[in-house]
Amino acid sequence: VTVFDTRLPAPLDALPTPALLLDQARMSRNIADMAARAGAAGVRLRPHFKTSKCLPVARAQLAAGAVGFTCATAAEVAALQDAGAGDLLWAHAPVGPAKVSFAVSAAARGSLTIAVDSMAVAAPLSEAASAAGVTIPYLIEVDTGHGRAGVPPESVTALASELARLPGLELRGVFTHEGQLARHVGDRPALEAAGRHVGETMVAVAAAVTSAGHPCQVVSVGSTPGATSAPEVPGVTEARAGTYVFYDANQVALGSAASEQCALTVLTRVVRVRADGTVITDAGVKAMSSDISAAGNGFGVVAPDIDFTLANEEHGFLTGPGTTKLRVGDLLRVVPNHACGTVNMWSGMYVVDGDTATQRWTTTARH
Amino acid sequence: VTVFDTRLPAPLDALPTPALLLDQARMSRNIADMAARAGAAGVRLRPHFKTSKCLPVARAQLAAGAVGFTCATAAEVAALQDAGAGDLLWAHAPVGPAKVSFAVSAAARGSLTIAVDSMAVAAPLSEAASAAGVTIPYLIEVDTGHGRAGVPPESVTALASELARLPGLELRGVFTHEGQLARHVGDRPALEAAGRHVGETMVAVAAAVTSAGHPCQVVSVGSTPGATSAPEVPGVTEARAGTYVFYDANQVALGSAASEQCALTVLTRVVRVRADGTVITDAGVKAMSSDISAAGNGFGVVAPDIDFTLANEEHGFLTGPGTTKLRVGDLLRVVPNHACGTVNMWSGMYVVDGDTATQRWTTTARH
Repeated sequence: VTVFDTRLPAPLDALPTPALLLDQARMSRNIADMAARAGAAGVRLRPHFKTSKCLPVARAQLAAGAVGFTCATAAEVAALQDAGAGDLLWAHAPVGPAKVSFAVSAAARGSLTIAVDSMAVAAPLSEAASAAGVTIPYLIEVDTGHGRAGVPPESVTALASELARLPGLELRGVFTHEGQLARHVGDRPALEAAGRHVGETMVAVAAAVTSAGHPCQVVSVGSTPGATSAPEVPGVTEARAGTYVFYDANQVALGSAASEQCALTVLTRVVRVRADGTVITDAGVKAMSSDISAAGNGFGVVAPDIDFTLANEEHGFLTGPGTTKLRVGDLLRVVPNHACGTVNMWSGMYVVDGDTATQRWTTTARH
Repeated sequence: VTVFDTRLPAPLDALPTPALLLDQARMSRNIADMAARAGAAGVRLRPHFKTSKCLPVARAQLAAGAVGFTCATAAEVAALQDAGAGDLLWAHAPVGPAKVSFAVSAAARGSLTIAVDSMAVAAPLSEAASAAGVTIPYLIEVDTGHGRAGVPPESVTALASELARLPGLELRGVFTHEGQLARHVGDRPALEAAGRHVGETMVAVAAAVTSAGHPCQVVSVGSTPGATSAPEVPGVTEARAGTYVFYDANQVALGSAASEQCALTVLTRVVRVRADGTVITDAGVKAMSSDISAAGNGFGVVAPDIDFTLANEEHGFLTGPGTTKLRVGDLLRVVPNHACGTVNMWSGMYVVDGDTATQRWTTTARH
């Protein structure tokens, strides 16, 4: 549906609200900085595509040296394969006939590595791959403390030995998502220590797998908070940060970035000033992140003296001393709590240079 | 992106997961029941389009006698106008040049009534409408206790008198969204009493506006929990329920529906069974509602003995005694906490008849 015919370039005041804005200069610096960091650590950078779901962003990451992408969903894999965007890791184990079938055809189509963390996951994949005459490379997912998918470090070698009996699958190494680092809000040294421990654990796991006679050339860690620690451990071969491309209020709270690095904002207007001082905007839950912040910043950061902790579907509620100067029609820019969850709410974003929107980039692969 | 080539009709086992499912028979009964209720109360039914964002659903509502739709966003207005779907109320005051311009052109294009709750909102609309030679019908939004947009009941007449001086705008009546009824979880009699109070308040407001010499033929209330009380008050002319078309776990908790009326589920598979008993699925935040439940049911209802209170972007975490029988690959159907927030996460839904998916309907007008 074409709704607004805003001609670009345009000042922010001419854009419909709410709108998702991307500061291209900040994004470019974030991409260059992380590429340099990965280069200095001697690891390959495989950004997570879920953060941007946006092909122009992915192309900028490839141009800066990313080796390919991490994907969460089949739709993300398909979108990147359609765009010819190279070597992919599908980091969410494919379960069920439709996803198994997709994994086989996607692996036949291009360079795709999949995630496996149990024989129950692997057996149907092995069967389908063998039937199709395809060999699918895979990594074993390791749970280094996040408590989600993956096997405990001490169980990886035994699983590798079991999996080695299955035809149609080929072990390439191990990976983890160190999401547990987000628990260390407000204590960056503890976060960094935990990140190094993740890297050390993964290197030890890889050594054990290799000692047991299995291939393990890939030792992959992945998160933005962990990007300054886990990949620095010698023996780690790959980093899979995602959020770094935009950063967000959660990452600022975690010490992963300064506010000035946040490239993504939601543009909104005041639509009502209530007698009790509460200011109502047109950016609600459907314009902001689909998940609640772990860092205590509500839906995002408007200003230091404004709280944005309540929202309905299409209305934001702002409170705090900073709201007293706000009037109906005022434009605000909210730094979202979680970039990945916010981008997922939008079909596209306006690329901005200062206070001018220069173009609109569409996103892809939403559910 | 075309990802899966599932041929329909297909059994649920053949669908990719996660997937949004719509039980068409339940939906049809919900539509017929609410149409009958509105008919018995003698009010016009103007369902909120934000719940389905789906044109086949909207057509079924029109066929059952809906007079048109309520919209939250310009994109919803445009999608329905493109489909020729009749008389619309844009219940979110249009603020800012882009939305003001859209309101003027949409009102010129078809039957559109807008929401106004202040002179600050109305003045730019009046100016733009006058310049275009258009007269835009509007309703004054009344805050009957939700504490979001709208003016307090006692301020409506004074605002109507101020607004009457503005050219290009034409008052048609008053409306409220009685979202405050959702506070009465577990006490349906209190909810119903609060709903009747909302209806009585609106009728009194309309009488005062009329007494002051202003037109007020529309007296509109709107919510699914309030649909059994507020529209029953004599003098109310219109009901604007939305969620009723699908219902959800929140509405069951509020006593608005029985579980058997819930037409929407998210299909998901178990992808890992952890040693601590936690079961991980492939339905996370991005597959479920974008907002947290007010009714204490987490992200949705899987079974009475299973809790779904934690999710990451693409992973759900299930706990409780009912998880012990679950194995990797098992299919589950989750009744979402909030239908409107869940539909907004999806580009389409599979229409199901029992355990068979018969067709796929796409959604529209997401941000």
